[in-house]
Amino acid sequence: MAEILADIGEFGLIDRIHELLRKESVQTPALTLGIGDDTASFLPHAGYEILVTCDCILEGRHYLPQHITPLELGRRAMVLNISDIGAMGGTPLYALVSLGLRADTPVSDVEAMYRGFAAELNPFGASIIGGNLTKSEGNPFIDITLIGEVEHGKTVRRSTAKVGDAILVTGYPGQSAAGLQLLLHVKRMEDLHDHPLVRAYNTPSHRAREGRAIAQSGYVTAMIDTSDGFLGDLGHICKESAVGAELIREKLPISEDLRQAAQKLGQDPYDLVLKDSDDYELIITCSPDHVDQICSAVSALSDVSVTEVGRITDVARQIKLILPNGTRSEIIPAGWDHFTA
Amino acid sequence: MAEILADIGEFGLIDRIHELLRKESVQTPALTLGIGDDTASFLPHAGYEILVTCDCILEGRHYLPQHITPLELGRRAMVLNISDIGAMGGTPLYALVSLGLRADTPVSDVEAMYRGFAAELNPFGASIIGGNLTKSEGNPFIDITLIGEVEHGKTVRRSTAKVGDAILVTGYPGQSAAGLQLLLHVKRMEDLHDHPLVRAYNTPSHRAREGRAIAQSGYVTAMIDTSDGFLGDLGHICKESAVGAELIREKLPISEDLRQAAQKLGQDPYDLVLKDSDDYELIITCSPDHVDQICSAVSALSDVSVTEVGRITDVARQIKLILPNGTRSEIIPAGWDHFTA
Repeated sequence: MAEILADIGEFGLIDRIHELLRKESVQTPALTLGIGDDTASFLPHAGYEILVTCDCILEGRHYLPQHITPLELGRRAMVLNISDIGAMGGTPLYALVSLGLRADTPVSDVEAMYRGFAAELNPFGASIIGGNLTKSEGNPFIDITLIGEVEHGKTVRRSTAKVGDAILVTGYPGQSAAGLQLLLHVKRMEDLHDHPLVRAYNTPSHRAREGRAIAQSGYVTAMIDTSDGFLGDLGHICKESAVGAELIREKLPISEDLRQAAQKLGQDPYDLVLKDSDDYELIITCSPDHVDQICSAVSALSDVSVTEVGRITDVARQIKLILPNGTRSEIIPAGWDHFTA
Repeated sequence: MAEILADIGEFGLIDRIHELLRKESVQTPALTLGIGDDTASFLPHAGYEILVTCDCILEGRHYLPQHITPLELGRRAMVLNISDIGAMGGTPLYALVSLGLRADTPVSDVEAMYRGFAAELNPFGASIIGGNLTKSEGNPFIDITLIGEVEHGKTVRRSTAKVGDAILVTGYPGQSAAGLQLLLHVKRMEDLHDHPLVRAYNTPSHRAREGRAIAQSGYVTAMIDTSDGFLGDLGHICKESAVGAELIREKLPISEDLRQAAQKLGQDPYDLVLKDSDDYELIITCSPDHVDQICSAVSALSDVSVTEVGRITDVARQIKLILPNGTRSEIIPAGWDHFTA
């Protein structure tokens, strides 16, 4: 019988996690007090703002336990928080992990999850400094608060896009949505776990390094990650910046994988690109004169593509799609809504 | 029909919460970016460490929805986090609130919860700067990350108690446990909601101001809040400080309410004081020469009692109870364990 949480208890689990992190996670010199007291504490760097974000994923709602390993799940939960720090132009520093777990969860699954967290944090020299463990009879959840830093006054916001700005996007939004659709609808017995689109759903990449480089370039006017889907998040930029947007449909980046999957699923590939999808790409706005500088900032450190897909307009909150024949159709930025969906 | 979350959706709810907090919560000048972007950001004060804590409460497990109002629930969830910051000698600054809610939750209940959060944060000039909303089909949960600050090098830890130190405790631990027992076992129809012990369970007080004053006095050697029960948390001090403790049973503070409730419930009042109880009192250790200074630091700002109940000993992790006849019996600091309980 595999050892389960009920065998070792909350304090036993805390000791095990503490021990695992001591061995497998980086040590951060500015941390003055880690796991094991009423709070953790750290000394912030002079001249920096502290960034804080919080994202929760729930079994059945944000992930499908039968298709994802605990290690992948840990990576995924951390990636979506790292993505938020990167979209502000910052660097991750410290995480607090709050878990709701069933008492019959194997201890090794929880340890694998923490290895996933550490795998994503270690490259940044970031570490887990606290959290909470709760027994849950319902769906397990992973709630992470991630703390980062950015030079004072250098946050890149979603509220500062300017009329006439170019709209850029990293990578290929919609990959994650296509992966989820494959998992849900492809009935034939085939192992989808290693399909590139399923990997994009289970273990998406963040663009935090790219976001930081874009921010440091000084040429970005607004930035957001695509956690609510491309249209949903472009909608957030439009709402907060009181602007509109025009997208040129043929310019939207579509991977060959996504094109094939859309055909298999009988779906419009542009729908997959534009609508709800758990990708963590970046939408970037900048003056049309600075598109090359933004692209260079990214290509200097990674091979992630940056594609110009449209312009910011002065029609507040209206997003239009320009088709090849020149017609413009208004599209509604729905995004993923948790209580009506 | 009362308006429910499914009627207004996630983004509608975010707008409502944002609006409520704009009107009813304090504004903090060091906050550079609040709710509404990928992250919040703030400028830390020079010369201060940042404190971070995270606590989650789950319906059915940590609170009984039929006995607590949403406003009380909000206050309670925030109090237990404020208590942790206070037990380090710090001051609360910013909260992130992550909620798992059923789609049929009345919007007014969520608003009342946020009023509860704000009611506890406002006196400190602290505010909610972010969070997360998730639809949960299972038990609703409230997961709060609270950020505070303390002068650099001035955290009061649980790992620094010294052999020979006096052990002090604020208020009356066990009140909350007694309140819960009344709710669970008193079958006669009577309105218990306003019973002092039930109030201690539903809306416990924190001792954050007292904790801060104790820390500022400079005389405390170790401190912890009693969120795992008096014995559980004294056990944490003993484990982390590699010391033991002797408690004089007759000195343990027992309120008249608790004595009466224990009689009604047929329980030993000392059991209620010592074992699992969701109070947020403070256990303090200091040199026996400094007990008066600690008491004065507290009495200068509140009428919360401080009682000396025993001594720190050199027998690592052993806690003994001294009875009136002089016999010493070893007691095991069980505390509330989430996966075995």
